[in-house]
Amino acid sequence: SRSINLAVIPGDGIGQEVVAEGLKVLSAVLPQDVKLETEEYDFGARRYHATGETLTDADLDALKRHDAILLGAIGDPSVPSGVLERGFLLKLRFAFDHHVNLRPSKLLPGVATPLAGEPEIDFVVVREGTEGPYTGNGGTIRKGTEHEVATEVSVNTAFGVERVVRDAFARAQARPRKKLALIHKNNVLTFAGHLWTNIFNQVAEEFPEVTTEYMHVDAATIYLVTQPERFDVIVTDNLFGDIVTDLAAAVSGGIGVAASGNINPSGDFPSMFEPVHGSAPDIAGQGKADPTATVLSVALLLRHLGYEAEAARIDDAVAADLSERTGKPARSTSEIGDALAVRVAG
Amino acid sequence: SRSINLAVIPGDGIGQEVVAEGLKVLSAVLPQDVKLETEEYDFGARRYHATGETLTDADLDALKRHDAILLGAIGDPSVPSGVLERGFLLKLRFAFDHHVNLRPSKLLPGVATPLAGEPEIDFVVVREGTEGPYTGNGGTIRKGTEHEVATEVSVNTAFGVERVVRDAFARAQARPRKKLALIHKNNVLTFAGHLWTNIFNQVAEEFPEVTTEYMHVDAATIYLVTQPERFDVIVTDNLFGDIVTDLAAAVSGGIGVAASGNINPSGDFPSMFEPVHGSAPDIAGQGKADPTATVLSVALLLRHLGYEAEAARIDDAVAADLSERTGKPARSTSEIGDALAVRVAG
Ligand SMILES: CC(C)[C@H](C(=O)O)[C@@H](O)C(=O)O
Ligand SMILES: CC(C)[C@H](C(=O)O)[C@@H](O)C(=O)O
Repeated sequence: SRSINLAVIPGDGIGQEVVAEGLKVLSAVLPQDVKLETEEYDFGARRYHATGETLTDADLDALKRHDAILLGAIGDPSVPSGVLERGFLLKLRFAFDHHVNLRPSKLLPGVATPLAGEPEIDFVVVREGTEGPYTGNGGTIRKGTEHEVATEVSVNTAFGVERVVRDAFARAQARPRKKLALIHKNNVLTFAGHLWTNIFNQVAEEFPEVTTEYMHVDAATIYLVTQPERFDVIVTDNLFGDIVTDLAAAVSGGIGVAASGNINPSGDFPSMFEPVHGSAPDIAGQGKADPTATVLSVALLLRHLGYEAEAARIDDAVAADLSERTGKPARSTSEIGDALAVRVAG
Repeated sequence: SRSINLAVIPGDGIGQEVVAEGLKVLSAVLPQDVKLETEEYDFGARRYHATGETLTDADLDALKRHDAILLGAIGDPSVPSGVLERGFLLKLRFAFDHHVNLRPSKLLPGVATPLAGEPEIDFVVVREGTEGPYTGNGGTIRKGTEHEVATEVSVNTAFGVERVVRDAFARAQARPRKKLALIHKNNVLTFAGHLWTNIFNQVAEEFPEVTTEYMHVDAATIYLVTQPERFDVIVTDNLFGDIVTDLAAAVSGGIGVAASGNINPSGDFPSMFEPVHGSAPDIAGQGKADPTATVLSVALLLRHLGYEAEAARIDDAVAADLSERTGKPARSTSEIGDALAVRVAG
């Protein structure tokens, strides 16, 4: 008999609320014969204030034993910027080698977009997750003086670039349009840019059916608002991926519906699924948060674990729910979760 | 009697055509008593192919003697990516210490935007121009092998950050809304991020009338499409500035109307003014390019040299021209230039 042993990290702010709904929908969609075990972990601002810890080796050992991780959100204004980001979120992505950061963008019928017209948006960004300017390399000298110098080092390896580029080509190959765009800034960041571009072109030879294009990151932001239908699969580095996926979320319905997976395709470590949005402390605890992004992250999680039919049921339920929202009164976090749970079970 | 001694760099592709119109409007707007001298320089792809040179020390000496530089566009697919960008454009910005890269975004009446509704967009980005990931620091080892490692080093100094932050505060102070946003990614790029944030907060104390906010670059892309009216002045680093100004141009009428100044406020070296768009080789030589961004760059140039009334006349002429475009047949590059020249003279 099948089972899913899930680590659950509600985290800070609205994380608690949205994760509860994600689990509700997960339980509702799973077939009877699949045994779902969940273990909750208390990470984030509360733990940091209580113990000074963000993520210990013992924590990593414990998390490692799960099949996957569902995360709500981490972050609180009471904690200095960077402490939880570097000390928890990025530490986990790096420790578990989450090199494929998967972020689909699909504008569903009935969903509002800030763009004029009715653009067709349906693409997925494969963001590298373990290299680039996110490595924490760099430093500061003469801190706080008028002679301070601060550096940030973007580290890019053939190994790291090739595996994520290969993953993106495989995803493009599996989609009807079979298109892949590399986003970088190879006219300025020539060292990293040439590495990315060369490997991209090399791997392209193994995927003759995939149509490729290269685009500078600045130009990409223009296309994302003027021709978003142009994109099918995008592969890009950690920082550019961070930027373009927030913009992609904004044009395709907002971060209320943007899901993501921090994936280790080798399976050596559990992958982690989380909404793209943050902890939104201003609306926390009020039942106002939209759990849809978390529910869609649960679908990514199920797909990753091989439950394709169940993932599709969630996607369909969300699409149906969103298409019926216009003109209706706003629902609470748990009302939306209830509605989705009913739909996926029915 | 007054005079302007201008270096003119038409460059590649549509650069030639749009610069001709920029000069036409400049001649038309200048009072009789101002003597305009122009000297044309042949930089870009043609020169590179003929001589292998992009920008020599002798070129820099010659350019240095001018009051300002007007640039069309540099870049051609026949030249490998990075050669002209690093070898000419960035070399010039760095050699002449163009640390204030000024990019206004204003959505003028009658101009199309990809955004729904009728957002009010009127802000200016002060992009740092001589530091950050643009320094060319970094390198490659084991090039072309499976063990290649490529690094890019972002260099940030208290000196470099403070002067551009100070410039941005002064600009915010001089505007009616007096708002300044710092855009960075200080939760991940903590070394550079803390330097920027600390200096921003320190300088803020000297400008108590300016309302400040901090925003991560990823979140900024969301606000640029959902709440662009939120922005008044933005200050940011070289790479983030590159990205957000292309997005800003896209939402405020497109790169056909986006102007920029590469400014050295000390006056030790001439400042350079250029449209944000590139050389667009696909439409070069056909009279299809819109010279408006170049004409608006001429206005920035005049304002920088102290010709405020003339700059304002150009801005007004462009606004009037744009407001009357809807529904009319497309005009050629020189027809648009002629129309603007008539307006500014009238
Ligand atoms: C919170 C932050 C560290 C994170 C990132 O930059 O990756 C977030 O913006 C994201 O996109 O998941
Ligand atoms: C061409 C390139 C070097 C340049 C930059 O990145 O600064 C351009 O994109 C710009 O914004 O002026």
